[in-house]
Amino acid sequence: MNLVLSQRSLWMWRKIKIMNKTNYYMQIALEQAKQVKGEIPGGAVIVRNDDIISYAYNTKENDKYVTSHAEIIAIKNASKVLNNWRLEDCDLYVTLEPCPMCGWAILQSRIKNLYFGSYDSQYGAFSVAHLDKISDSKIKIYGGICEKECDNMLEDFFNNLRT
Amino acid sequence: MNLVLSQRSLWMWRKIKIMNKTNYYMQIALEQAKQVKGEIPGGAVIVRNDDIISYAYNTKENDKYVTSHAEIIAIKNASKVLNNWRLEDCDLYVTLEPCPMCGWAILQSRIKNLYFGSYDSQYGAFSVAHLDKISDSKIKIYGGICEKECDNMLEDFFNNLRT
Repeated sequence: MNLVLSQRSLWMWRKIKIMNKTNYYMQIALEQAKQVKGEIPGGAVIVRNDDIISYAYNTKENDKYVTSHAEIIAIKNASKVLNNWRLEDCDLYVTLEPCPMCGWAILQSRIKNLYFGSYDSQYGAFSVAHLDKISDSKIKIYGGICEKECDNMLEDFFNNLRT
Repeated sequence: MNLVLSQRSLWMWRKIKIMNKTNYYMQIALEQAKQVKGEIPGGAVIVRNDDIISYAYNTKENDKYVTSHAEIIAIKNASKVLNNWRLEDCDLYVTLEPCPMCGWAILQSRIKNLYFGSYDSQYGAFSVAHLDKISDSKIKIYGGICEKECDNMLEDFFNNLRT
């Protein structure tokens, strides 16, 4: 009985540790997103062996590049850091489910785990376009991390647009 | 009768003119693709009002960026030229059907017409992932332009890899 309890405790402890870590990095992605000015807030963080190697936020309007989404910039920065387009041991945290452009870039870059906050029920790379189904990538995808906070941030942005 | 004939002639002449133009720009995209070294050959050209405003070829391995596909680089260059991410009056010519990353970037950039050479039956943004079906873009897409030449170029590349 004691053994069973301790195993369960260990399992719970591990789960809490992973959850805390995931939430921690998503909070950093949210901080990135909050730096966006005048366009849809979105932030991304890339983590490798518990080190943040890259972070970015949406700058499409500012850069005047259609590709300047947080994920694409973060992937480019991480590739510079590692001097490689293969980001095999990396995890990516992003506040909103990637669009198909970013989604395919993530799948192609061999990122190990993808954590995103809000779901995009209109243009989501995974929940709508199902790109993971046509890719050979072994990525693991977790949606809905700090979802309420990410949703609120987007709602605030669109409410401010309307007023 | 004469009128009918002349209308038909006019229609044929217009068709030939359009076909010639399309083939002409695809030949330039092919020339771009032939400059690729050590990776999948792919070339792209962006045309606006009969002017070539941007061209590029795949440099993913050289740049060590997963996003360095011909289409993404050509879009970025065109945005620089026009100082705008909206490429509304532009046509894009590319030797191979875009992947979902490039496909979504093309849809988002509001390019008017897309002409591609070879179909990608495994990862094609349109023939496989059907991204045009979930987008609001009014783009017109024409596949199979100079298809045999584009297919041959890819076949030569993969045959050389095997030997």
